[in-house]
Amino acid sequence: MNSHMEKPYVVGIDIGGTNTVFGIVDARGNIVSSGAVKTSTFDNVEDYVDDVCKNLLPLIIAQGGVEKIKGIGVGAPNGNFYSGTIEFAPNLPWKGVIPLAAMFEEKLGIPAALTNDANAAAVGEMTYGAARGMKEFIMITLGTGVGSGIVINGQVVYGHDGFAGELGHVIVRRDGRLCGCGRKGCLETYCSATGVARTARELLAARTEPSLLRNIPVESITSKDVYDAAVQGDEIAKGIFKFTGEILGEALADFIAFSSPEAIILFGGLAKSGDYIMIPIQKAIDDNVLNIFKGKAKLLVSELKDSDAAVLGASALAWELKDIKE
Amino acid sequence: MNSHMEKPYVVGIDIGGTNTVFGIVDARGNIVSSGAVKTSTFDNVEDYVDDVCKNLLPLIIAQGGVEKIKGIGVGAPNGNFYSGTIEFAPNLPWKGVIPLAAMFEEKLGIPAALTNDANAAAVGEMTYGAARGMKEFIMITLGTGVGSGIVINGQVVYGHDGFAGELGHVIVRRDGRLCGCGRKGCLETYCSATGVARTARELLAARTEPSLLRNIPVESITSKDVYDAAVQGDEIAKGIFKFTGEILGEALADFIAFSSPEAIILFGGLAKSGDYIMIPIQKAIDDNVLNIFKGKAKLLVSELKDSDAAVLGASALAWELKDIKE
Repeated sequence: MNSHMEKPYVVGIDIGGTNTVFGIVDARGNIVSSGAVKTSTFDNVEDYVDDVCKNLLPLIIAQGGVEKIKGIGVGAPNGNFYSGTIEFAPNLPWKGVIPLAAMFEEKLGIPAALTNDANAAAVGEMTYGAARGMKEFIMITLGTGVGSGIVINGQVVYGHDGFAGELGHVIVRRDGRLCGCGRKGCLETYCSATGVARTARELLAARTEPSLLRNIPVESITSKDVYDAAVQGDEIAKGIFKFTGEILGEALADFIAFSSPEAIILFGGLAKSGDYIMIPIQKAIDDNVLNIFKGKAKLLVSELKDSDAAVLGASALAWELKDIKE
Repeated sequence: MNSHMEKPYVVGIDIGGTNTVFGIVDARGNIVSSGAVKTSTFDNVEDYVDDVCKNLLPLIIAQGGVEKIKGIGVGAPNGNFYSGTIEFAPNLPWKGVIPLAAMFEEKLGIPAALTNDANAAAVGEMTYGAARGMKEFIMITLGTGVGSGIVINGQVVYGHDGFAGELGHVIVRRDGRLCGCGRKGCLETYCSATGVARTARELLAARTEPSLLRNIPVESITSKDVYDAAVQGDEIAKGIFKFTGEILGEALADFIAFSSPEAIILFGGLAKSGDYIMIPIQKAIDDNVLNIFKGKAKLLVSELKDSDAAVLGASALAWELKDIKE
């Protein structure tokens, strides 16, 4: 019955625009071995898959071979879980619809599943992290962009087309900041890394007080810089977190009205800014959530290590795969 | 195998603040018999349940008795599916937490389930109406308030606490109109019946053109009045639908980013205003939805008759009930 005994490992592959990282993961979420290739150097996707497999296969053999691997999980931008394809991903070198899950499956003889990075993060958190045992939660990934993975009844919400859960593109300010998606006022324009830098620029321009952030080239301010300044009592840095947290908390209050989750789990650089960001977020949730939901949804930070999370998340998808030819 | 053969009927009970209506429904969604009692006259919930059962039992006996009934479905404000209770419903005469499903179950010896009216409407639409065969859709009920029932993977989303799907209370205008819930700018303040009347008052005050709506006492304008005026070419009436449809469409575009449904189904008076309301809604969805979702979610109107929908929706809950003592 316990297939973990026969097939104790899964493979996680996280595809980013620059790098692809992969690893072999056990049932407790230990990455037993890992590797990487440069995504951006492969114009041809067949060459890319060949290279990933060439680097991955020795790791698989070292664990006892293909028969020890339950499945392969792939996290990728614009990944469609239903079809196992990447569709028109703007930051990847391959155009159109790429059947990447099938390509890995064929090449390695191991079943493969694929989804976008934020959904993979949600599955990773449910399998190995802060959402263990939860059936209802929302994962928000705060990175270069803002992504989300929504879990309802213990399952990731993929929607009718495989692309559900784009909460980074919910409009939080009508006619607000211009977003990379071409629309205005998306959550992502305020709460992504670039959103925080943008807020820093605006506050530094609008206010005259001294700030440690004035010593940093304004285009390159990160949430880590803001955090370091806030720790030293910098009022502008605290103001940036307050502004950002307030908008995120307002948005989360609306998300709670949708699926009434047990928890909202934040992942990414911004989420590691401690009370400076968490207190404004929690206050904005409390101030804005419908009475019936007050005090119900927990606000948590991911328990997965940043460096491991992408591979763990992708790998977690693979535990539920059926063997090929079953 | 086919329990519809042995137990061909379900009972639907819709509890409103003024009236309770109930009916016996067959598998095709025909209401074979029905009745009603006045909710508001019963200060004591035991007396109320007694009276409903006293009126319902002859209808059940006429169909062959309790053994012909698969189950009872109850739709009620603030209904919690998980516990079968009504919790702190402001418009019902009974205070606190009322175990209504258990009370009906015990009294009649028939299994009972309970949820809120909008969730019941969603199940009704999935069982007998426009959402037959759909596994991913959002039901929006446009009535005195704005309610919603969200279906994902073929199941109503109840959330961690049983109260998910309060899309009428998503904030569409920060610091907008004051809502009955105590907050500002909820969707309900714009797209409910009272929201439409409020928009009518505002437009009639702001504009000087003649309008058929000026002949109606401003407090009592309904979406039917606005529709009748629009049919006669009334520009203010058309403006009311344009304003209302635009806000609703903007909100729906955000809801699509959440669960990427196959369809959004509108129910209620406003939804019967034809192109006057549907065209502005569709345009606002198209103008505001994230590119990846463009042209995907269908915008539909409920296929259930207004007078039947509440009982049908409640009854549909009962088809999935297991027999008592199974």
